[in-house]
Formats: sequence, structure tokens, C-alpha cells
Amino acid sequence: MGIMHIVFLLFPGVTQLDLTGPAQFLSRLPGAKVDLVWASLEPVPTDAGFSILPTATFTDVPHADLLCVPGGMGVASVIDHAGALDWVRQVGSGAEWVTSVCTGALVLGAAGLLRGYRATTHWAWHDLLPLFGAEPVAARTVIDRNRATGGGVTAGIDFALTLMARIAGDDVARAVQLALEYDPAPPFDSGSPAKAGAELVEVYTARANRLAPNRRADLIAAAHRLGFQAS
Amino acid sequence: MGIMHIVFLLFPGVTQLDLTGPAQFLSRLPGAKVDLVWASLEPVPTDAGFSILPTATFTDVPHADLLCVPGGMGVASVIDHAGALDWVRQVGSGAEWVTSVCTGALVLGAAGLLRGYRATTHWAWHDLLPLFGAEPVAARTVIDRNRATGGGVTAGIDFALTLMARIAGDDVARAVQLALEYDPAPPFDSGSPAKAGAELVEVYTARANRLAPNRRADLIAAAHRLGFQAS
Repeated sequence: MGIMHIVFLLFPGVTQLDLTGPAQFLSRLPGAKVDLVWASLEPVPTDAGFSILPTATFTDVPHADLLCVPGGMGVASVIDHAGALDWVRQVGSGAEWVTSVCTGALVLGAAGLLRGYRATTHWAWHDLLPLFGAEPVAARTVIDRNRATGGGVTAGIDFALTLMARIAGDDVARAVQLALEYDPAPPFDSGSPAKAGAELVEVYTARANRLAPNRRADLIAAAHRLGFQAS
Repeated sequence: MGIMHIVFLLFPGVTQLDLTGPAQFLSRLPGAKVDLVWASLEPVPTDAGFSILPTATFTDVPHADLLCVPGGMGVASVIDHAGALDWVRQVGSGAEWVTSVCTGALVLGAAGLLRGYRATTHWAWHDLLPLFGAEPVAARTVIDRNRATGGGVTAGIDFALTLMARIAGDDVARAVQLALEYDPAPPFDSGSPAKAGAELVEVYTARANRLAPNRRADLIAAAHRLGFQAS
């Protein structure tokens, strides 16, 4: 059994569950070696009040079997970070699987890795995928050839399980599902805009605008600087 | 609006999703301040190939509004760590909410905090709860007075959402569910022993025995040293 090198981009302002959910599942793949990669080995602050340590820097990891880019508030800064985007482009060009969770898809897009691919992202950001030449699909997990994208945050768990089955077979995925007791039973049914209704969508939008008023404009501006234009 | 101090025990060998799942949700409570506490501020290795940084040490945090103890392979060592167990007992005695995810319930139990309470834990460890005077309940989330316990690993997400609703109301919980797109759609239905079947339960048990052959015996021995005896 060979090593399966699973490499996550870690960055300041990551929505940590975008990374930690899939990492919990994918780290149970046979032969899995997990790396979290950023520009330096200093602790990286997440969105949830604590920091995670990178295991390696960009120069340490020129190749991955599986690249996964999580999302979060820091995504616009990543797209503006030439070293990070070059690394995503380089590692993504050679990886067996090129993947993202949540708004991490926008980073893959900015690196030019989603042109002509069907993809998903957090429900509030689907409309930005075409800017990068991707076709948005409303699904928890979208696999198009070797691109696998997950929806918002917790969708990363369904994404990881789906991907594990593709990589190592259904039995491995089902055994990990049992080990991690993934038998979800949410006490409410408000996990999508259609189910939550317009009022909660407005609560979400108001909070997002309050926390990061220019986030959408910043992302679009960054895309334009990179040469992407809405078609 | 006051501060809601949400304090997780962090320890070597934690199953990181036991902590990172609930932390993602609970950090969105109004006024939330999250701390991850361990004996020192050095990076703490998790089970998934990377380390998380504590935000504070035991002496820094003598009180919490909400204490949450995650589980994992390191639980027996935590029970044997006098400083950690004393801290859990002290903070747990004064907290508004005393909670755990997965085998973190065994740490609460060892600290004497589950005597006479209904509780849950990872499905493979329910039989150890009575050793600590707790009554096992097969559920994703069990709330008995101010004790809230979650089942294995991913159950921590259902647990957190349930707890958020108790603390801040259904609307807050539902808004966070939407923000984190928690509309689970697992590709398989093997998340509990009953659904997975005997063969996958055997796969789980064989792996657990291979990784930590003495884990159950160590836990029982630690409980005995603390004066707990099966009734």
C-alpha cells in the first residue's frame, strides 16, 4: 500500500470546519499522510477563535495526490497572495484529485483550475463560479473528472465521504462513516436557503455584510486583476 | 449582551472533529469567546496529522460558561493526568453547561460530573458510562439538567446545534445551520451499528484493537484507581 498524500491549503481566516471536517475523514484513507500547507510554519488563525499549525510550507510540498482548498473570510486575501495562488496552480496541475470545500472553490477558480468544470461552493457564492469559467451546480458534492468540490462548510463531510468511496471503495467509506458515527440528525431543517426561507437568508446576508462589507467586491476585483471577466 | 465563555479541553490524541465541529457552531453564539485549554501553550497533536494551539492553560481559565470535553485516543491519558482531571472537575462544578462529545463523556465521568445523569458517548463506549454512575442513552444528543453530551465525533454537530437552541433560541440555531449549510446528505447510511451491520462493526473493532490494544482496559483501570467501581 502506497502513501496517499492529502494536502490542504491552510490560511488566515479559514473557516476551520471546511478543513477539519474533511481532514477527519480523509485522514482515515489507507496510507493517508495529511499536510496543512501555508507560506510559513507560524500558527494560522482560523475563524473560530483558535489557531492551527501548518505542517509544511509551499516550498516543502511541490506535489500532492489530493489537494483540498477550504474556504472562509480569508479567501480574497489568498487570491491576492501570489505565492499561495502559484502554489495552488502548481500543485493542482499535478494532483490526482483537485478539490475544494465551500468558497475554496473560488481559489481553485482563480488559479484557473475550474475552467470548463462543473463545481459547487457555499450556496451564497454560486453566482461567482462562472466568473472563473466554472458551471455552478447546486449539490453537496460535485465530481467532474478529477475535480471534486463540496458545498458550504458541513458539506465538506459529505464531500469527503463521497470522495473516499471513489478513491478506496464503498466499504472503506462506510467503515469510516461508522467509526465517526456519521448518522446525522439535525434538530432543525434549515440547512439550505430553500428550507430556511427568505427571513433567515436575510439574517445571513446582513451578518456577512456586517462582518466583511466588501467581501464580494474584493473577490470580483481580485478576479479581474487576474484577467477573469464574466462572459 | 454579555460574553459567553465557551471552553474546550484540548489534549494530545484528541479526535479533532469532536472539538472543531462544535467549536465552529458554538463560536457563532452571540457574545461567544472560545478558549482551548491544556496544561501548556505548546501545540497539541491531534489524531488527524496536525496540531492545534491551546489559547490558554488550566491556571488561566478557572471558570467557564460552557465547558466541553471532546474525546479520542488520548482520553485515558487525560483521566490519568491529575492536573487535567482536577481542572475539569473545578470548571465543571461552576459552569452553567457541562458538556462533552464522543468519549469526552468518560472524562466528565471520571471527574465525577456524570453521577446520576443520563448521558451519551461514542456508540462503542456506552457500556463504560455506568462505571462512572451515568445512565447511557443511545441518542445523538442527551441533555439532562445542565449536562449535555453528544455521541461519537460527527454527533458533536447535532449536539452543538441542539445546545445553541437551548442557550440562544431556535432562530439563532437555525441561522447558524443555514450559514454552515448543514443540510446533511451522506452518500451511505452506515453511521450507526444497527445501520452498518455486524461486518462493519467488526472492521471498526479490529482497527481500534490494532491501534490501541489496551485502551478499554486502561480506561477501566484508570477509573478503578479513582475509586469508581461498576455497581
